Amino acid sequence: MVLSIEEIAKHKDESSCWVIIKNEVYDVTEFLLRHPGGPAILLNYGGRDATSAYEPIHSSDAIQRNLSPSQCLGPLKSSDARDLELQEKQRGQTKDEIRVEHAMKQRPPLSRILSLADMEDVARKVLPFSTLSFFSTGSDDEITLQENVRAFERFFFHARVMRPVSKCDPSTKILGYDSSIPVFVSGASTARLGHPLGELNITRGCGNANIIQMVCTFASISKAEIAAAALPSQHLFFQLYKTTNLDSAAKLVREAEELGYKAIFLTVDVAVISTRSRDIKNPWIIEAEEGKTQYYTEGDPDETVNMFGTSTRHASRNYPLDADMSWEVTIPWLRSITKLPIILKGIQCVEDAVLAAEMGVDGILLSNHGGRQLEYSLPPLEVLNKLRRERPDIFYKLEVYIDGGIRRGTDVIKALCLGAKAVGLGRPFMYALSAYGEAGVSKILSILNREIVTAMQLLGAASIKDLTPELVERVDWEPATHRAKL
Amino acid sequence: MVLSIEEIAKHKDESSCWVIIKNEVYDVTEFLLRHPGGPAILLNYGGRDATSAYEPIHSSDAIQRNLSPSQCLGPLKSSDARDLELQEKQRGQTKDEIRVEHAMKQRPPLSRILSLADMEDVARKVLPFSTLSFFSTGSDDEITLQENVRAFERFFFHARVMRPVSKCDPSTKILGYDSSIPVFVSGASTARLGHPLGELNITRGCGNANIIQMVCTFASISKAEIAAAALPSQHLFFQLYKTTNLDSAAKLVREAEELGYKAIFLTVDVAVISTRSRDIKNPWIIEAEEGKTQYYTEGDPDETVNMFGTSTRHASRNYPLDADMSWEVTIPWLRSITKLPIILKGIQCVEDAVLAAEMGVDGILLSNHGGRQLEYSLPPLEVLNKLRRERPDIFYKLEVYIDGGIRRGTDVIKALCLGAKAVGLGRPFMYALSAYGEAGVSKILSILNREIVTAMQLLGAASIKDLTPELVERVDWEPATHRAKL
Amino acid sequence: MVLSIEEIAKHKDESSCWVIIKNEVYDVTEFLLRHPGGPAILLNYGGRDATSAYEPIHSSDAIQRNLSPSQCLGPLKSSDARDLELQEKQRGQTKDEIRVEHAMKQRPPLSRILSLADMEDVARKVLPFSTLSFFSTGSDDEITLQENVRAFERFFFHARVMRPVSKCDPSTKILGYDSSIPVFVSGASTARLGHPLGELNITRGCGNANIIQMVCTFASISKAEIAAAALPSQHLFFQLYKTTNLDSAAKLVREAEELGYKAIFLTVDVAVISTRSRDIKNPWIIEAEEGKTQYYTEGDPDETVNMFGTSTRHASRNYPLDADMSWEVTIPWLRSITKLPIILKGIQCVEDAVLAAEMGVDGILLSNHGGRQLEYSLPPLEVLNKLRRERPDIFYKLEVYIDGGIRRGTDVIKALCLGAKAVGLGRPFMYALSAYGEAGVSKILSILNREIVTAMQLLGAASIKDLTPELVERVDWEPATHRAKL
Amino acid sequence: MVLSIEEIAKHKDESSCWVIIKNEVYDVTEFLLRHPGGPAILLNYGGRDATSAYEPIHSSDAIQRNLSPSQCLGPLKSSDARDLELQEKQRGQTKDEIRVEHAMKQRPPLSRILSLADMEDVARKVLPFSTLSFFSTGSDDEITLQENVRAFERFFFHARVMRPVSKCDPSTKILGYDSSIPVFVSGASTARLGHPLGELNITRGCGNANIIQMVCTFASISKAEIAAAALPSQHLFFQLYKTTNLDSAAKLVREAEELGYKAIFLTVDVAVISTRSRDIKNPWIIEAEEGKTQYYTEGDPDETVNMFGTSTRHASRNYPLDADMSWEVTIPWLRSITKLPIILKGIQCVEDAVLAAEMGVDGILLSNHGGRQLEYSLPPLEVLNKLRRERPDIFYKLEVYIDGGIRRGTDVIKALCLGAKAVGLGRPFMYALSAYGEAGVSKILSILNREIVTAMQLLGAASIKDLTPELVERVDWEPATHRAKL
Repeated sequence: MVLSIEEIAKHKDESSCWVIIKNEVYDVTEFLLRHPGGPAILLNYGGRDATSAYEPIHSSDAIQRNLSPSQCLGPLKSSDARDLELQEKQRGQTKDEIRVEHAMKQRPPLSRILSLADMEDVARKVLPFSTLSFFSTGSDDEITLQENVRAFERFFFHARVMRPVSKCDPSTKILGYDSSIPVFVSGASTARLGHPLGELNITRGCGNANIIQMVCTFASISKAEIAAAALPSQHLFFQLYKTTNLDSAAKLVREAEELGYKAIFLTVDVAVISTRSRDIKNPWIIEAEEGKTQYYTEGDPDETVNMFGTSTRHASRNYPLDADMSWEVTIPWLRSITKLPIILKGIQCVEDAVLAAEMGVDGILLSNHGGRQLEYSLPPLEVLNKLRRERPDIFYKLEVYIDGGIRRGTDVIKALCLGAKAVGLGRPFMYALSAYGEAGVSKILSILNREIVTAMQLLGAASIKDLTPELVERVDWEPATHRAKL
Repeated sequence: MVLSIEEIAKHKDESSCWVIIKNEVYDVTEFLLRHPGGPAILLNYGGRDATSAYEPIHSSDAIQRNLSPSQCLGPLKSSDARDLELQEKQRGQTKDEIRVEHAMKQRPPLSRILSLADMEDVARKVLPFSTLSFFSTGSDDEITLQENVRAFERFFFHARVMRPVSKCDPSTKILGYDSSIPVFVSGASTARLGHPLGELNITRGCGNANIIQMVCTFASISKAEIAAAALPSQHLFFQLYKTTNLDSAAKLVREAEELGYKAIFLTVDVAVISTRSRDIKNPWIIEAEEGKTQYYTEGDPDETVNMFGTSTRHASRNYPLDADMSWEVTIPWLRSITKLPIILKGIQCVEDAVLAAEMGVDGILLSNHGGRQLEYSLPPLEVLNKLRRERPDIFYKLEVYIDGGIRRGTDVIKALCLGAKAVGLGRPFMYALSAYGEAGVSKILSILNREIVTAMQLLGAASIKDLTPELVERVDWEPATHRAKL
Repeated sequence: MVLSIEEIAKHKDESSCWVIIKNEVYDVTEFLLRHPGGPAILLNYGGRDATSAYEPIHSSDAIQRNLSPSQCLGPLKSSDARDLELQEKQRGQTKDEIRVEHAMKQRPPLSRILSLADMEDVARKVLPFSTLSFFSTGSDDEITLQENVRAFERFFFHARVMRPVSKCDPSTKILGYDSSIPVFVSGASTARLGHPLGELNITRGCGNANIIQMVCTFASISKAEIAAAALPSQHLFFQLYKTTNLDSAAKLVREAEELGYKAIFLTVDVAVISTRSRDIKNPWIIEAEEGKTQYYTEGDPDETVNMFGTSTRHASRNYPLDADMSWEVTIPWLRSITKLPIILKGIQCVEDAVLAAEMGVDGILLSNHGGRQLEYSLPPLEVLNKLRRERPDIFYKLEVYIDGGIRRGTDVIKALCLGAKAVGLGRPFMYALSAYGEAGVSKILSILNREIVTAMQLLGAASIKDLTPELVERVDWEPATHRAKL
Repeated sequence: MVLSIEEIAKHKDESSCWVIIKNEVYDVTEFLLRHPGGPAILLNYGGRDATSAYEPIHSSDAIQRNLSPSQCLGPLKSSDARDLELQEKQRGQTKDEIRVEHAMKQRPPLSRILSLADMEDVARKVLPFSTLSFFSTGSDDEITLQENVRAFERFFFHARVMRPVSKCDPSTKILGYDSSIPVFVSGASTARLGHPLGELNITRGCGNANIIQMVCTFASISKAEIAAAALPSQHLFFQLYKTTNLDSAAKLVREAEELGYKAIFLTVDVAVISTRSRDIKNPWIIEAEEGKTQYYTEGDPDETVNMFGTSTRHASRNYPLDADMSWEVTIPWLRSITKLPIILKGIQCVEDAVLAAEMGVDGILLSNHGGRQLEYSLPPLEVLNKLRRERPDIFYKLEVYIDGGIRRGTDVIKALCLGAKAVGLGRPFMYALSAYGEAGVSKILSILNREIVTAMQLLGAASIKDLTPELVERVDWEPATHRAKL
């Protein structure tokens, strides 16, 4: 059935809601209440073309996973499709689009990116304002976001000299899998907001560098496509956001296992989603720039804003995250449906690290979700340091990782000295792929490799096993800081 | 007796002083020396209309409480009343009034207020400069004002994960009375400086949200009116400033008890009033803006400025606060005149908390009067933390509250983890009602509710009793700070 | 002998050097090498009028103390004297003089000075740049200058409530002499640089307020004149800078004793004079303002600058301070020449406080010379706190005072809680008299009185003896700071 | 053989590469791969005049040390030499050269340089931008660079008074050799970038002041020339960068010994060279100033930048530093080839200090290479303090020095109180000679002398042995800081 713009336009509310995506027409009436992002945004595109909004934030298999064949109504009339294309072309650019286009032309050559901070500088210039807000935001006042980074500044080295280090080997194993440096990609969603190829940039960059990628439930490229893009020798982990729907959750895990993913990282720090003000306020800033500021009038109803900003793209009342997970129930359930190693992502204190060891999980990722969840959660490096001081035995019982705030090779080394098996980075990969695609990902991996090796050599460490707690000291003064941006 | 402007104008000094208030004429000659604000300000309006100055800072029953019927001389001649009205209309607006009027039009919709800081931002823009000074000032250099807030930044969380929190209940009991969240309104005076309905905005907002309001002796709405405006299910506390006049003090307490107030919060941190420089200097800034700066000339007598600025509105030599209260005399006296629970508001150290418990009072409010009294008084959160470390037994003997510096749901949670039964907020309510009246009050209560629930869930706490000391840590570094304003 | 300008002009070098001061001519040839300020500055005025440079920095008895009658050559010819006067009038004002004259007219009324900081603000505006540099400078990078002030910010109060304080008495005794508040004037030199009446402003202001003044060896008013200006009930202390010339030193002490001074404060922290860069650099800034900057040319001899700036006005190679004082010799010597109590001014560590007690001196003034001597000397409040913790017995053996950085009544109270008998202030008095003369001195004493009483009442202290160590706590965080200026 | 520009121009690549230096022609084809700075920069000058690039960064004996006689082809044709000279003259000045020329004329007279900071201010104005970058840079984010300086700000004095100090003697012995103050020149390379006479300025300034100079392997003046310029009474140390070529390393040591150098300082903190971003980025800033910014184009190969900036001038793959030194092999080897005392330069922790003592070396220089090597290496003063607390016995077993961050006499005194025998300064000498040549070097030595003596006198120390640990305290607060620049 070929459908016309006129016909489609009639189906724009809860009674009947159709949308056009890439010149195909879909009936989403029934789906409205199941839409992870909530019905409102879908209704906003009811009866018209939703392609530009849909594309960057859905994985390629989103439609077939969610709609039945009967809900796929058929193609848009081809003359109408041409009209749509023309309209899109004629639509004027927004101020922000103009700014981005200009900034893309002024990117420095890759050879001039010397550090992850340099890469972030470029990304901050070339990213659309809304995407930058989404990538860079933290919760509440972004204290934890900042403290994650600042924690590393408190740890100094006791460098050892006169040790043979010309043959310095930074490689290690993570859950038994080779990794060229003790670094992996921590899960982050919706990379296509930053680059059309989304998470595939990471997959390809990591394949070349022999680095493990953790793929998020809410990746904007399906985990199958990512698996397909990976090299035969390349390893992937799967980051699970568990929903209350057990079947649906189990299906995700089994798919990952079948696709060859090597571990399940169960997200445990998102019982609910925190308020990320920067992300919420961003559209109002854009609005003000365009001279459309709204004002209060007496008696205004307080139509409470969606508190979760761009985050609702992947979780909302319609995609219920399980806020009732428990040690007693959730872990045995997960063990029962997969043979893969289970790692808890989002452990935030020593007590839970100990519990995790007692429950026999394979690893824990000390993380506060990059400062995007509980404000004033202790920085992961501080939790790691406490674990080292209070329960050094735990490091023999499971693998301990951290993520959050790592920006330099010296940061990596500090975590490893304190007992981390490896460290995860999230935002830096989003920035790198947004700025230069796959080449950006390769670049920051190469920078990290260089920085790690240099730091090891100057510390007198020829291999990862030489990185011991005695090499670091948590100083009791307030160190100089250089990191203005986060 | 109908009186004319001409006649009234003759009575303008200590020998005979009449004033017009809302077109009624009063003889305040005898009252001059009893006026809580001192005689000078009254004399300033001697022989003329005092309505605009009188209105916002007196409760509606102020006249009948203070003047005898014979001192109420009768109405102003109606043609003169019309003239007054006309004059008031024709008087040009001051620069500050123009600024305020403009700012009121540019308030954002309530849905864009995401935090108490956002609300304060609006209030700072729409409040008259003098009222803002009075509301926001602290004593001396405002160190304690700042430290109250900064204290919260030193406490971080040990979040627990994998605990069922979908059904999170933030409600509690305060002195046995239900409260939807562990928050109450701490006493603050003269709300009508910020909004014509004054404290009633709080009463109504709290009624809807099931929050307890503490009503100040110096509220600009009488405690009877407030009681009348409350819902049947709603609870009120009374904040007593004890004067040296025992009868007058006892009368206030008995009135409160009869009006159904549920507790007496005895103010103990105002033996005398501290110097609040910002409030004192404010008129000089206004003066300078209007090009009327005064200069020193040799031999100038130093006519010492009123050191207490706007504060004299409610306390001065003519309204003597009792600077000689004592544990041995004052508490038994108060017990003897009321059956209500007695809470000491303004405890500032562990030693006095212990004394209070030994004296058998029902509760203590750890407070330094919002940084408006003793400069360099320890922040209440620090006192709470010391009490928790040094005398955890005290929490079983009486209820402990704190106020001062609380601006976020996480702040509330920190105090509760350390043992506070509930926390009080003062200035945030003044800002909220000044910016949006009752709707503003409702808004910040709704924000606090959301922030408290989110923080509890992410901490792994399903109810208030799950908030334990182990969940917080006082860090030993200087955390990032975001709070530029106070 | 009446002398003419022409005749005098011939005597302008080492072979014969005459100067005119207040129309009298003096032969200073022999005196050149004895001049405390060194010969260079005297030679600069050789053969001409030196009155304007001489006046503000010499006490009125300087000439008769230093020159023999035969060196006083006689009066200047009266027509020449008139010419000089005319020239002085016609000399154009410098930029700085114009600035000062303008600033003097814009001083606020005294009633608007609410704090010592407000007073300093005025002084900084009305003082000639060179005098401000001299008064405000510290040594090297002025770290100790700043830390003296900042130390007070680390001490917070444990306020006690419910204590009768309506009758609060801030008076005390210093070495047995009454003082209306626990404050005295610490020695500072050359007050006439700030006001023509110099130290007499302090004498008169203190007389009225019953405060003890310490008079410096290098005061710009003679100690006899100061004694003469004092009220019968008023007490004075003498600050001795001991020279290597024992007779000369003993003479100063005996004179003080005969004039009724009540104690000798022996300066022990000026073995040599430290480098005070701001004071040295000041003339170059003036020079640059006037477009007379000097540049280096290759081969320039490095004519080393006088490292001690304005300080050489009172001490140099020609006025040898005793750098070889010792506990064993100096204290017995001083005891042998006076019956007055002996206090060591400039004790900087616990060890020397203990030694002083063992040597039986009557008191110690913990001081680092207001940050003008040893850079990185520990702030006096910190030394006091250490003394309290480590050797509380010392406070029973002698009186302990501190000076340096005290600007608020709460600062005074903190020092007293820790055991100081009284505190000295130096710069605040120089600023006060520079801004308003005697009225300024009275004003800051009245401010201090008010601040001390208010702080005592809010602390629950009705008298000085109630100020105990338990009332203060040295906090372990970095407090907010408000004091931008020093 | 006389050669023409035309002939030479043909030899410009790897197959045959000739360069002109000071009108002599050299065949560097064979040398390309041995060139310490790598082949690229040599090829850049292939076939043409390289004098201006060669001169400032090579010692005078560089050619005869590296090229065989047959590689010295002969003189440039004299008419061509004149042409070259003319061209050089006609070449327009760059913006930076113009700025420098102007700044040189505006240097203040030496008498106005009061501190090492003043000297650095001048140097920062008169140095070419690229040289300033090279001299002032640190590694990564320059945290360690800053912390080295800030460490001194945490140590305060317990000054002792009433001790005879008029005869204060700051002289000491270093490895048995007299030194007028406990200061030596720490090795730094390539002084000719700052002044045509390079390190000779230091040699001459130190000779006059009786200060020991450490001469770097990479000095831009040969160690023979420096030895020749030294006074008979003057002492020199040699700083060895050990290459993997044992013969070459041994030759350097023997030459030094034969030239009369008194000790070998073996560099142990440069297993590899760290990334010094400021130095690397500097040319891009110059480029941008000249409007020649480069941009990224899709598919650009990432020609990785030389990570070591100006540093490659003295170390690279072609001049292999020994990254495999060890306690067991290297120290015995060094002992076997020289009788000179051996000092390890670059010890960064207590453990290695202890090892050094056990290995019997004669001294250790606690240093992190001025913040140019391992980022987050602990500041040397902190290492010294730890050594003092944990292993005070070590100070009796070998001499301990520190360098890094010393800018004031009080810094020197702090290090000596904690047990350092002497302290090294590096950058200050580079700044001094860049600003004023030898006169600058003399000036800062004279400033240090004055500051050290003043501090000793005010501390109550008449000689170096009086500087004991009790005189310093490491404070637990964050001190005021004055040092904006590094």
